[in-house]
Amino acid sequence: MPVPAVPRCPGRSLPRSGHSRRTAGARGSFCGGSRSAGGGRAVGPGARRGQASGRALDSLDRGRRGRIKQAGGRLRCSCRGGRGAEPPPGLAQMEPRSSGVAPGGVSVSAVLPAGGSGERLGGATPKQFCAVQGRPLVSYAVWAMERINWISDIIVVVSPENIETMKTIIEKYGHKRVTVVKGGITRHRSIFNGLKVFAEDEFSCHLLQKPEVVIIHDAVRPFVEEDIVSKVVMAAKEHGAAGAIRPLVSTVIASAADGCLDHSLERARYRASEMPQAFLFDIIYEAYQQCTDYDLDYGTECLHLALKYCKTNAKLVEGTADLWKVTYKQDLYAAESIIKDNLSQQVCVITNVKETLGQVGFLLPESLKSQVKVEAISISLSKNDSCLQNIISEQCYNFVCINDKRCAIQETQELVDMLEKSNIPLLYPVVLISVHLDSSENNSFSIGMEDLTTIKKFARETKKKNILVYGLLIQHKDPLLLQETVNSAAALIMALIKDRNPELIGQLLVA
Amino acid sequence: MPVPAVPRCPGRSLPRSGHSRRTAGARGSFCGGSRSAGGGRAVGPGARRGQASGRALDSLDRGRRGRIKQAGGRLRCSCRGGRGAEPPPGLAQMEPRSSGVAPGGVSVSAVLPAGGSGERLGGATPKQFCAVQGRPLVSYAVWAMERINWISDIIVVVSPENIETMKTIIEKYGHKRVTVVKGGITRHRSIFNGLKVFAEDEFSCHLLQKPEVVIIHDAVRPFVEEDIVSKVVMAAKEHGAAGAIRPLVSTVIASAADGCLDHSLERARYRASEMPQAFLFDIIYEAYQQCTDYDLDYGTECLHLALKYCKTNAKLVEGTADLWKVTYKQDLYAAESIIKDNLSQQVCVITNVKETLGQVGFLLPESLKSQVKVEAISISLSKNDSCLQNIISEQCYNFVCINDKRCAIQETQELVDMLEKSNIPLLYPVVLISVHLDSSENNSFSIGMEDLTTIKKFARETKKKNILVYGLLIQHKDPLLLQETVNSAAALIMALIKDRNPELIGQLLVA
Repeated sequence: MPVPAVPRCPGRSLPRSGHSRRTAGARGSFCGGSRSAGGGRAVGPGARRGQASGRALDSLDRGRRGRIKQAGGRLRCSCRGGRGAEPPPGLAQMEPRSSGVAPGGVSVSAVLPAGGSGERLGGATPKQFCAVQGRPLVSYAVWAMERINWISDIIVVVSPENIETMKTIIEKYGHKRVTVVKGGITRHRSIFNGLKVFAEDEFSCHLLQKPEVVIIHDAVRPFVEEDIVSKVVMAAKEHGAAGAIRPLVSTVIASAADGCLDHSLERARYRASEMPQAFLFDIIYEAYQQCTDYDLDYGTECLHLALKYCKTNAKLVEGTADLWKVTYKQDLYAAESIIKDNLSQQVCVITNVKETLGQVGFLLPESLKSQVKVEAISISLSKNDSCLQNIISEQCYNFVCINDKRCAIQETQELVDMLEKSNIPLLYPVVLISVHLDSSENNSFSIGMEDLTTIKKFARETKKKNILVYGLLIQHKDPLLLQETVNSAAALIMALIKDRNPELIGQLLVA
Repeated sequence: MPVPAVPRCPGRSLPRSGHSRRTAGARGSFCGGSRSAGGGRAVGPGARRGQASGRALDSLDRGRRGRIKQAGGRLRCSCRGGRGAEPPPGLAQMEPRSSGVAPGGVSVSAVLPAGGSGERLGGATPKQFCAVQGRPLVSYAVWAMERINWISDIIVVVSPENIETMKTIIEKYGHKRVTVVKGGITRHRSIFNGLKVFAEDEFSCHLLQKPEVVIIHDAVRPFVEEDIVSKVVMAAKEHGAAGAIRPLVSTVIASAADGCLDHSLERARYRASEMPQAFLFDIIYEAYQQCTDYDLDYGTECLHLALKYCKTNAKLVEGTADLWKVTYKQDLYAAESIIKDNLSQQVCVITNVKETLGQVGFLLPESLKSQVKVEAISISLSKNDSCLQNIISEQCYNFVCINDKRCAIQETQELVDMLEKSNIPLLYPVVLISVHLDSSENNSFSIGMEDLTTIKKFARETKKKNILVYGLLIQHKDPLLLQETVNSAAALIMALIKDRNPELIGQLLVA
């Protein structure tokens, strides 16, 4: 099942402007009835990093400054990707691989209703704010839109009590082009509020440019490909409305008043209506203006409103299995596993050229290749290596460093610094496995407690940067057992990568 | 979300007759057009264990021998739970907590269609045979029926090429009261084949006793409570047919011939038809006999057949979220996580009375209690302790043994032996964490490679028994840091229990 919101390998969808995260910082805006005071400069990691990269900030800000607006005492990032600005050298790869042009050349924005209470999930936290790999689900959905650089504005509609939470999320994860809007008491009322930002002066603190096509996507559908978004937008341009559909998993039945079966539907004739959907803005806005309070309070289907009030028969577009909506606890588990799985598709093995690594430096990448895509490079970490920079900027989330020292904190620190600068750990945790070789002839070789304590302390510090450091010891004194030991090491590496267990950081495993 | 096919805590559903697994061994029978030759004595773990427990075998076999049938060159286990036989002392808890009496006193059997190709899941293995925590999904569904001891026969219908696979599964996991039947080319044809075993002499190699009510449940719905099965059976007895339903997650729409929206259904008026369903046997069998080839080839809904051909309006019973069907890869991930989660609800902490454990033996269980249900006992593992036996037989799947030796293989081996005898590891992997205390004043304390190698070898051996052994070292020389170290140990224990990672066995973690 393709689930591309998580980068799988180089050349896939990449974060929008890694460098832009270093520039203006994350800014959130809030539109709606009640404006809250306060705000000011952004304080998230994006902002912090911005202070450390003056050149990039200057060059990019020149292209964007005119577009940063302050409204209602809150800041809003309206920098739309810096398409005109040159990215700093070495960071070009961080640009999204999106085509940059909307299908059919239309202007497109997106509305993400995120006002649900998540009662079907159980628990106090609405599902869109539940963390998956440490990051709230809504951030995945925002990111899925944000990385498509022909989407101009992303409107996230949240219930009044979650506006501050949402703004914190936008700052923390450096989301761009996002406006937070206060939701209504039902899904339809929330979407309507989101649309009003493009149309009603009195509602919006700053009227956003009305798009020709508006996408509606759920905040609890974390995985959506540009491909399907593009198809839906194209179809909406042609037909006025369009939506993704999926085959029904279960037969649908109607019950009679006595709680007994009235009739069952022929499964093949019906489809589940999923998201994303897209509409010519004027059509869906007209439909919301025309529709009744009953529609707004009890309806669930935007395609239905377009049909009922604008006589627009939406084009139905077959979607992929990854469009499914996180509804129950099992869906959260599934999302977590899918993300972990996708993050585990590639590993970069770095052998330090200064060290004498014998055969392990060759055998370990070979053993890993049977399970995962491996980028093996031999470099000195103390130098700024462009090959490693490229691998990082192509969104590799797993690194293995082979040293022949027992405790190679310094070398590992250099990689941690590079990763931190890259912003890669902002969206997902990075796994960094420090492999130490033991070639001592002595059978009574032992690991000292002091070394272990040093590694653990170091790992605790790097965990704060969303980088998970583990130690792995490979004994290679017996040449007959070397291949077996290396295979065992590869299995441990894959287990650490696939699990991404934050509790096991700083442990020294033995192959 | 309650997901009770996995035992959550003592007093919940328990394996049917742990002792019976030690007796006659697992036997599978095959009914259908093509009878395969071969077979003979069962060779699964149940059979192997049977040889090692003569007393239990004798006493139980006396009560059951008459019911073990041999048919078509294949063995079938028709021992129906040994309700008349006294279980051996200490194993009484292994009996299922099922009421033993079917709702309304009716006779009940179950048919599990398991003939699907699983094409929506992707991959070569049909989804019902995909492993979850090492065990095929179909085994979970069989077990969900088997542990309800008022269900007499469980008919599993599989495609011809998977008959041997299914019989191997039945033997390996010691499933009882199961008959394997050859499926047809569609779901309805497979279910019909399953029903024929109760009705048609010429079809069946040994006609099974026709039940008053038959349950139909999917092989790819691993989690189902006795409670909902019971409700559906009761409703079927009263109304002739009944089925579990769930609210629709997505709006259902009908498409027109041009691929555009024709109309959308009002979500609140419809329900998803789920499993289990139940029928008066004569009604559903009549319906299948009457229905057309078109129904058999293109239909999906048994409730519909009962309505169409027997004018029986099925009673609809609201089901729980855990009735969902494993359809896509994300559902397999979810099932895996749910099972792991449920296995992680209880831990037994054993402190060896022979040892001088200082405060750790007290502090560690206390720290764990904030995260999990803890049974703390202080015993000598070398004695056959009835308290520990009870905890094991109440299906605790996590054990922590605290010793002050560096390498307490012997003590751990004693627990491994007890677990193996209990049959607990047959259904799910057991986690066993051997905690070693280091109270040496010496800062240069070290772990020897020989100790590590010994633990790893031992863990590899016990893994074959589905027992996952990990080592954990707690330093407690600094009293000021003791609580912090113990909390860190508790976090590591919980991480190991929740992950159940088979690759990390034999590793020595340091708190």
